[in-house]
Amino acid sequence: MNIEQRSGCPINLSLEVMGDKWSLIIIRDMMFGNRRHFRDLLNHSQEGIASNILAARLKHLLSLGLIIKQDDPSHSQKAIYSLTEPAIQLVPMLAMIGAWGRKHLPVSEDLSIRAQLLEEGGQPMWDAFMDELRESHIHDPIRGANGECSSAVLAGLTAAYQQVRARTSAQ
Amino acid sequence: MNIEQRSGCPINLSLEVMGDKWSLIIIRDMMFGNRRHFRDLLNHSQEGIASNILAARLKHLLSLGLIIKQDDPSHSQKAIYSLTEPAIQLVPMLAMIGAWGRKHLPVSEDLSIRAQLLEEGGQPMWDAFMDELRESHIHDPIRGANGECSSAVLAGLTAAYQQVRARTSAQ
Repeated sequence: MNIEQRSGCPINLSLEVMGDKWSLIIIRDMMFGNRRHFRDLLNHSQEGIASNILAARLKHLLSLGLIIKQDDPSHSQKAIYSLTEPAIQLVPMLAMIGAWGRKHLPVSEDLSIRAQLLEEGGQPMWDAFMDELRESHIHDPIRGANGECSSAVLAGLTAAYQQVRARTSAQ
Repeated sequence: MNIEQRSGCPINLSLEVMGDKWSLIIIRDMMFGNRRHFRDLLNHSQEGIASNILAARLKHLLSLGLIIKQDDPSHSQKAIYSLTEPAIQLVPMLAMIGAWGRKHLPVSEDLSIRAQLLEEGGQPMWDAFMDELRESHIHDPIRGANGECSSAVLAGLTAAYQQVRARTSAQ
């Protein structure tokens, strides 16, 4: 892992690795949106990530070993991106970041329901979700990228999000 | 709170607020090192923060309402910086960031003992620590800045750090 090492403090090193405004956003989208292709990450970005920034950040995450890239056998021109075990273990941290943001920042209702459910579900839900991610990203990434792995937690979060979005956009 | 708002997602907004390599480092030093004056934050920085960056990041954290600044009655030329309630509530998130870094990044032993104790202590320790921080930063910031507030959790973390540092630097 090629990092700067301002100091050996675990908080500092974590920030050296992911202390930018995009790396965790890409991991979030791969994790909660199961976006596994470059075009998906680009076109469905809520934050409107630019193509060159996405490419640079993916390269950065690959060099850190937080994601891997492999060929998609069904689309010869498409690569599949998958989370590695260290990235999957970011689930509790992302849940905490979401919980803090939900409480203290001007979040939108549709985009914060998943953070709410993750906070309420606590460690048991995070553990179940991490097991699903291991299946879909590590053990069977090709089927996982096609949304063919079982994923009860992710399906529940996604359904809750779509329900709130349908209700709020109908108002 | 003056933020960019790329999207209303709680993870995104948290990163917009603190997604740089220094803001959380400064909060960490105020929180775990009780560094409350500009010179302390500058001179004792493990990561060697530059004076102009420290000044800019403090201004940023003030504008976000994550810290406040007030006169120190005992030193007319010194200002005291204190954490606000939203910043104090970052304790669980910082504990998770430290736990992840300790597990996956090349941390140093002396600088990771506090992360280890915080992880092992879990929510009860985080709650006790947040209560101490409220006393020392919100209720009695002047005495807190002088290290005169009772702080059993912080004292325990600091003692453990100094013990490991003495042992590792003697080797």
